[in-house]
Amino acid sequence: MSSNSFGKLLTVTTFGESHGPAIGCVVDGCPPGIAIAPEDFRHDLERRATGRTRHTSQRHEADEVEILSGVYEGVTTGTPIALLIRNTDQRSKDYAKIADQFRPGHADYTYWQKYGIRDPRGGGRSSARETTMRVAAGVIAKKWLADRHGVQVQGWLSQIGEIVPHGFDLSAVENNPFFWPDTRQVTELELYMDALRKSGDSVGARVDVVATNVPPGWGEPIYGKLDGELAAALMSINAVKGVEIGDGFGVVAQKGSAHRDQMTPQGFASNHAGGILGGISTGQPLRCSVAFKPTSSLRLPIDSLDTHGNVAEVVTTGRHDPCVGIRATPICEAMVALVLMDQALRHRAQCGDVGEVTPRIPGNLGG
Amino acid sequence: MSSNSFGKLLTVTTFGESHGPAIGCVVDGCPPGIAIAPEDFRHDLERRATGRTRHTSQRHEADEVEILSGVYEGVTTGTPIALLIRNTDQRSKDYAKIADQFRPGHADYTYWQKYGIRDPRGGGRSSARETTMRVAAGVIAKKWLADRHGVQVQGWLSQIGEIVPHGFDLSAVENNPFFWPDTRQVTELELYMDALRKSGDSVGARVDVVATNVPPGWGEPIYGKLDGELAAALMSINAVKGVEIGDGFGVVAQKGSAHRDQMTPQGFASNHAGGILGGISTGQPLRCSVAFKPTSSLRLPIDSLDTHGNVAEVVTTGRHDPCVGIRATPICEAMVALVLMDQALRHRAQCGDVGEVTPRIPGNLGG
Amino acid sequence: MSSNSFGKLLTVTTFGESHGPAIGCVVDGCPPGIAIAPEDFRHDLERRATGRTRHTSQRHEADEVEILSGVYEGVTTGTPIALLIRNTDQRSKDYAKIADQFRPGHADYTYWQKYGIRDPRGGGRSSARETTMRVAAGVIAKKWLADRHGVQVQGWLSQIGEIVPHGFDLSAVENNPFFWPDTRQVTELELYMDALRKSGDSVGARVDVVATNVPPGWGEPIYGKLDGELAAALMSINAVKGVEIGDGFGVVAQKGSAHRDQMTPQGFASNHAGGILGGISTGQPLRCSVAFKPTSSLRLPIDSLDTHGNVAEVVTTGRHDPCVGIRATPICEAMVALVLMDQALRHRAQCGDVGEVTPRIPGNLGG
Amino acid sequence: MSSNSFGKLLTVTTFGESHGPAIGCVVDGCPPGIAIAPEDFRHDLERRATGRTRHTSQRHEADEVEILSGVYEGVTTGTPIALLIRNTDQRSKDYAKIADQFRPGHADYTYWQKYGIRDPRGGGRSSARETTMRVAAGVIAKKWLADRHGVQVQGWLSQIGEIVPHGFDLSAVENNPFFWPDTRQVTELELYMDALRKSGDSVGARVDVVATNVPPGWGEPIYGKLDGELAAALMSINAVKGVEIGDGFGVVAQKGSAHRDQMTPQGFASNHAGGILGGISTGQPLRCSVAFKPTSSLRLPIDSLDTHGNVAEVVTTGRHDPCVGIRATPICEAMVALVLMDQALRHRAQCGDVGEVTPRIPGNLGG
Repeated sequence: MSSNSFGKLLTVTTFGESHGPAIGCVVDGCPPGIAIAPEDFRHDLERRATGRTRHTSQRHEADEVEILSGVYEGVTTGTPIALLIRNTDQRSKDYAKIADQFRPGHADYTYWQKYGIRDPRGGGRSSARETTMRVAAGVIAKKWLADRHGVQVQGWLSQIGEIVPHGFDLSAVENNPFFWPDTRQVTELELYMDALRKSGDSVGARVDVVATNVPPGWGEPIYGKLDGELAAALMSINAVKGVEIGDGFGVVAQKGSAHRDQMTPQGFASNHAGGILGGISTGQPLRCSVAFKPTSSLRLPIDSLDTHGNVAEVVTTGRHDPCVGIRATPICEAMVALVLMDQALRHRAQCGDVGEVTPRIPGNLGG
Repeated sequence: MSSNSFGKLLTVTTFGESHGPAIGCVVDGCPPGIAIAPEDFRHDLERRATGRTRHTSQRHEADEVEILSGVYEGVTTGTPIALLIRNTDQRSKDYAKIADQFRPGHADYTYWQKYGIRDPRGGGRSSARETTMRVAAGVIAKKWLADRHGVQVQGWLSQIGEIVPHGFDLSAVENNPFFWPDTRQVTELELYMDALRKSGDSVGARVDVVATNVPPGWGEPIYGKLDGELAAALMSINAVKGVEIGDGFGVVAQKGSAHRDQMTPQGFASNHAGGILGGISTGQPLRCSVAFKPTSSLRLPIDSLDTHGNVAEVVTTGRHDPCVGIRATPICEAMVALVLMDQALRHRAQCGDVGEVTPRIPGNLGG
Repeated sequence: MSSNSFGKLLTVTTFGESHGPAIGCVVDGCPPGIAIAPEDFRHDLERRATGRTRHTSQRHEADEVEILSGVYEGVTTGTPIALLIRNTDQRSKDYAKIADQFRPGHADYTYWQKYGIRDPRGGGRSSARETTMRVAAGVIAKKWLADRHGVQVQGWLSQIGEIVPHGFDLSAVENNPFFWPDTRQVTELELYMDALRKSGDSVGARVDVVATNVPPGWGEPIYGKLDGELAAALMSINAVKGVEIGDGFGVVAQKGSAHRDQMTPQGFASNHAGGILGGISTGQPLRCSVAFKPTSSLRLPIDSLDTHGNVAEVVTTGRHDPCVGIRATPICEAMVALVLMDQALRHRAQCGDVGEVTPRIPGNLGG
Repeated sequence: MSSNSFGKLLTVTTFGESHGPAIGCVVDGCPPGIAIAPEDFRHDLERRATGRTRHTSQRHEADEVEILSGVYEGVTTGTPIALLIRNTDQRSKDYAKIADQFRPGHADYTYWQKYGIRDPRGGGRSSARETTMRVAAGVIAKKWLADRHGVQVQGWLSQIGEIVPHGFDLSAVENNPFFWPDTRQVTELELYMDALRKSGDSVGARVDVVATNVPPGWGEPIYGKLDGELAAALMSINAVKGVEIGDGFGVVAQKGSAHRDQMTPQGFASNHAGGILGGISTGQPLRCSVAFKPTSSLRLPIDSLDTHGNVAEVVTTGRHDPCVGIRATPICEAMVALVLMDQALRHRAQCGDVGEVTPRIPGNLGG
């Protein structure tokens, strides 16, 4: 497995730099027979797009997906699906000044140490621009999961800075620019973000994702556990510093008698586990939560170093998000969907004939 | 990559069930020339061992490691190193009663759903007994990391239930049965655990791990990030529900101006990032934190289901830990060491000649 | 994928040196529900065993397989199956004399160059002893293939030195010590081998393998082609120098009009392709052929070098086969079976639902 | 590893159909610091190009490579290198007639059986058009191998039909359209090919490849052997039916006393092994040989089946090569180069420090 590839049976390989000619991906292992059209990618790319509102980076990319292969007469053929997006709104001049500086909190210094060379334009490969292709690949996974298994993957913002939702209404999430589950707080968030932008600072965020209708049995022990692969997938997103499954760090102070989810003839009585036991899905909703750090690209100047080891003042004048977590919601969804589809195929490979030999217990304990 | 294997260039494959004849592992990709003897495994296996104190499971396993291959005249040869531990203290009768029951909070139900069959003795493959081999493999990684790079990996318990350390003294960690960094609290912890055991209940815990002297440049973007692979490695340990790097979920409420670690000619001024930027090590101490759920094997009875879908009362009478997080400390260390050694080899493969072509900046900003 | 592992979804990892304490393997990814007992391995291990007749090496190994994991109450559970064979007939003293010599035609020099160290006892890891575990793993694959798909894998010797079979009778193959398809030549072969052994020399051989009842559709383009993976599997066997599929090198002088296998309503009219087109099985018998070099371990002395670069006379006094190709027949079968089972699982993963959506053409063109 | 990817540390993923909008590849794992420009690809793509002479297919593709990523200011950065070639000379109408027919000897039937759907335009994904990207990726590998290790990879045609070279002059190979090592036979070959084309038939061929200056020690036992990976790489090329290393199938009739290559203080006295022992390079020239079948796309009509199982006459009117082996020479070179570079990186990963600890024997036995 190369390090720019993700997934074992549904393998996504991404390429491209923030300000290079294009970004793209190859989705390999997708089953044949799925209807895919360029316009299918629009909705989620729009949700992730920078420039969507004044609260995110003002870079404007059309993000038009070209399908280069793997689809014939609108349907997948089982061969690798290559997707390409041309970069159109590059402003490499914005970055000329910092080409030999190490921006604090960015990958500038580590890429330099690792490779001895780096593309400084907009962070090059380490830019969150790469996540565009995760979202595009995720569209295919979401479609397959929904069509074949009725699985739905939905994320929302569950915290910005100190602010948490007062209530929870899933239908609200897609109706405000913050993926926020309580519309009553939208004005508060707008004021908060405006003040933040004015101050030149940024703030962290938390994203929650739930997948429903996941059948029991997906996930491979021991080193291919569903939760292990979710953790890898989500932690690999830019700016992520923490991942939780189910009750997450809340379990540290829990008693076993409170944590263990009781099984009843009507289904599970609770879901502290977050839909995974022993690395395998239980059939309950799969719940995970992700911590995004505040971006380090600030208008507030700071002393740093340059490639010669000299002190250099760094100020970000490019276009950046004061809260990168906001538009990370569809990225998290995409990664969850890609992990689930990959595991679904792996399950089919190893246990495809289990259903024929062994009766399962009556009823899906998904409650 | 099979699902019982871990690591790309240093690949560990484990096998074995809790109450089968033996557990073992194959460590493939280890460089030649490392001195390894059976007694090297004793210290860490002892640290992990059940039955070490009255606060952990009373299962007594000698855990004698036999080296079956890969070592000639005491030195690794570059061929796969197979390690074997015979299971000696199996009490399969303890489990006969629950063979057709689904213990809540365990993998019984999910293994049954996935495979249509399962080894019920002590949880079979899903038992934490498997982690013995992770610790054994980790010994090799720790040795190589220390010999070649001076890297030290050290973990400790940073929370049990609601109890957190009052002070922090690294030298205390190995001098008490709780891997606790403040000796003054040991009596408090003993009383707490005794009460817990008496009540038949269990509790969660948090383990912290730090690796020092990690050189800058280890870790592979984008899907082989050092933090992504640490997350996968740690989340794959039994009972883990959350993983953090650096400030972890603390970043959600942070401002960017506070989070970004300043670079100075004397080194980094802080380490909120936890030693990783863009998925690549910075040279600073690598910091991570792991949440362990309370074990669901309780003496407190609970209604559950059996394989026929009928209600069945489950009581655990076997030997179990009231806090599985305690002896998870060396397991977490082992996984961190295995990830680091794998990444070190991967870095050498791709960038082995960087040093020859490109001068790095003066000084290692590891401070 | 580590280099001592083979297969993507059915992954076999082998370990062990010729004269170490044991050899073994881990078979990961095997579906649950297959009946496996230690005695199942006996037949094929016996077929491969050295010491079977006076025409092969006189090393006598009991080759008793111990199943360490993955099987519960006689049935596979879906967890990794570890198999162990203790080495009992080691005579390491035989090799003391050549510990610092490079035997010509052996891996002594290359292992030394690669690793800077090697286990000289019987060739260590490079010994054909390793293939014992391939045969053992192959038993599981053969069983699954036969049970689920009716696939049969059968090999035979098709050439020793200049001698080729006069006739072909598949039922003869298992009734003589040469896996020879014409019993009338057995005496000729015995005399030939006796003379060869007396002369202290050795000779090459060719093994053919056919798999019948392979369904159409197995094999993954482009870099996971069925023929590509067969080539890798067979070329990885000790002493193999050539691999052919179907007509093999015979195609070089063929015309296209003669080579292309016509499709008729009654099935294919010929099988020059050997059952594979575009890397995917056609449903016809899968045919391959393998060239084994003559062993270089001869009683005839030869000047070579030692590890100090000095000239040293090498004479093999240990136990060796005058024709290693003879007992390679079951090894080739095992590798073909492992490749087929792996591809079967991969096909099920990606195309498991093809049957439901798209009608296939009537009849299997397997003729 | 996905099935459209090749290589463990230098991983090449190709995509694209013969008559889709574009073909391309992603080369992941390439070390930083290598100078790469679009014009570097021209020479080898030209050598592979169809339409080069009247003896190959008359499809005319400009095959202009666009570098989409991984190169900054003309130098590789260590991030994935994406290469794109637009298809410009598609004539899909040529294929409309055979869209529901199975051409004998082609992958039409097997793709249909596997996927239940296929792109019939020019063979879609199964077309040799895909090998264009192998050649492009191979250019990068050839460059790195030459720059860092002085390795040269050179192929030639060693047989067309019954015709073999009378003499051998390496410098002749690039000076005739047949990659033929004896210029005196060029007229004979031209007449032979003209007659063949006129007859509407095709013929097979054999390609030899040699790599010189390969250092000893490259290649990973047991399942990552250098010869095993070469076999997989070469057998994965369209139309290949056989692969040989060193003396290949010639070893079947050899005696061990003749085959084993003697080691002397002046180097190896012969090279029957083809530069590989135990799966690891010896330092001698690496020799391999590949059999290409005659293409099945003939102007000679033949009865076949259509997707409804009915008999249908197939005649190829599109543009095809009467001998696909001719322009396969640079493809074989590319695959050998990719395998070697991958193994070089793997060797560096595991044994990078061998040189520091263990002295090798004096002199490189590469003679």
